[in-house]
Amino acid sequence: MNARVLLPWTDIEVPEGVEAAYYDGLGSPPPDLEGVEFYVLPYDRGPEPPKLIGRLPALRVVQALSAGVENLVPLLPEGVRLANGRGLHDLSVAEHALALIHAAQRDLPRWFAQQARGEWVREHTRSLADSRVLLVGYGSIGRAIERQLVAAEAVVTRVASHARPAEDVHGVDELPALLPEAGIVVLVLPDTPATRGLLGAAELAALPEDALVVNVGRGTAIDTDALLAETRTGRLRAALDVVDPEPLPAGHPLWTVPGVVLTPHIAGGSASFYPRAKKLAGEQLRRYVQGEELLNLVPEA
Amino acid sequence: MNARVLLPWTDIEVPEGVEAAYYDGLGSPPPDLEGVEFYVLPYDRGPEPPKLIGRLPALRVVQALSAGVENLVPLLPEGVRLANGRGLHDLSVAEHALALIHAAQRDLPRWFAQQARGEWVREHTRSLADSRVLLVGYGSIGRAIERQLVAAEAVVTRVASHARPAEDVHGVDELPALLPEAGIVVLVLPDTPATRGLLGAAELAALPEDALVVNVGRGTAIDTDALLAETRTGRLRAALDVVDPEPLPAGHPLWTVPGVVLTPHIAGGSASFYPRAKKLAGEQLRRYVQGEELLNLVPEA
Repeated sequence: MNARVLLPWTDIEVPEGVEAAYYDGLGSPPPDLEGVEFYVLPYDRGPEPPKLIGRLPALRVVQALSAGVENLVPLLPEGVRLANGRGLHDLSVAEHALALIHAAQRDLPRWFAQQARGEWVREHTRSLADSRVLLVGYGSIGRAIERQLVAAEAVVTRVASHARPAEDVHGVDELPALLPEAGIVVLVLPDTPATRGLLGAAELAALPEDALVVNVGRGTAIDTDALLAETRTGRLRAALDVVDPEPLPAGHPLWTVPGVVLTPHIAGGSASFYPRAKKLAGEQLRRYVQGEELLNLVPEA
Repeated sequence: MNARVLLPWTDIEVPEGVEAAYYDGLGSPPPDLEGVEFYVLPYDRGPEPPKLIGRLPALRVVQALSAGVENLVPLLPEGVRLANGRGLHDLSVAEHALALIHAAQRDLPRWFAQQARGEWVREHTRSLADSRVLLVGYGSIGRAIERQLVAAEAVVTRVASHARPAEDVHGVDELPALLPEAGIVVLVLPDTPATRGLLGAAELAALPEDALVVNVGRGTAIDTDALLAETRTGRLRAALDVVDPEPLPAGHPLWTVPGVVLTPHIAGGSASFYPRAKKLAGEQLRRYVQGEELLNLVPEA
């Protein structure tokens, strides 16, 4: 008998012996969900796709396409395994971090505003090359960011939750000594009790004049009011894909501070994600059918 | 007797035995120019600084800080040597090319427009990672661009005026075969008879739907009318630091085509230029005083 699987895209490679049904998270799920053993969750489609987990009586595996799966763990029936999308978004997030840094250093908002007015006025800008970058969060995304920063001839200092001297990684406890030397701080941190408010008033005050604060991790790592205070005076600049609160409400003062560049939490969602996600899904199906160990299993699930 | 030199910045290292005067290209030159032997031209300050060349009777060396010095050669008195600023702008130009590519691939103009309206609306974007980039112009700037593209996991094909098979560089004569495979074309070419109009209607038509045309070399390499035609229909996109004509006149249709990103020829002028320029000037002064051969001498001058 064929294993039934529920997939978000029709161009995932399906191994022999598997019967695929499709649910993209937007329309309705297929009416017959009886024998579905393997469910690849539609990505970034809101609260409906996870609700289906409890309605699949034959379910054995949930494959998520995001790295964070905290919201899924409580929904898993006994005996159902969960695999995450660790790594699928790394390049996309890293690339967006570079896009934000370039935008801020090379004054892109100014040129685009001039373009809208049909105005040719030239001025020199800051640069990324030779900048001293403090990279806070040194996992796979941090490493991808670092490779691109180094290729741009920026000077990178690595920081993670705990010092790893063998890798030349400093611990966050060393931030007070490191911040005064940073021209750019890039945060790539998950939302945990330890990271919340990591950059507060004291830490931001320790940064030098004109430093750029970049965040592509979680908005809670920065004290928004403290950042507002430091950017409103023009002492610091910021380029943020994530903020606290999120979504940033209409009328929030952060929208309009000069020197602050905002994108609406879109770092992870770019074209390079899809081929990688489809490849992972196909590989997991193959492993499932052939009885091999799955990748990216979430141990606590 | 001390050698007199005329410098644009006061923080250039001046060797012993040298007496420095300063002219930043904005104010007036010092009144006494009698004994000036070595003149470091103020950078990007318009037509006044070059005019001084003919008013320095003791002049032996002109150090320019731009790579192109065509406009200076006719101004040189007999026996005065000219050195250029080759390499000083490479990183700055390369970095701006990346900024333009990121801006176009990650829809930065859209997010900045949303930010101005205080609007949080999310959508997935294109990416640079996994893009196929045709890099046309493979000198020192091209190589710097390539390093950053490769770090971003784009796939680069190298093109130069002539094929160099040992370096895996294709010749421009192979463009007809290469263009249909390119998601992004980056032009880094000087203005020469051979490069003018390199991307005309036929070449642009050979690019696939939605391809991005990037230019950080000289605007004349692209037929502006042909590019207008292909971008107005939305078939191609463009991110341009240089255009033809330049400056782009107010009211020119290119200003307002959706999918076209413009910056006003500012790729070379960023902060990373200054320390490099000052270091070169200091090194050249040292070589001059010690009778060593100068760097970057322009042979035809």
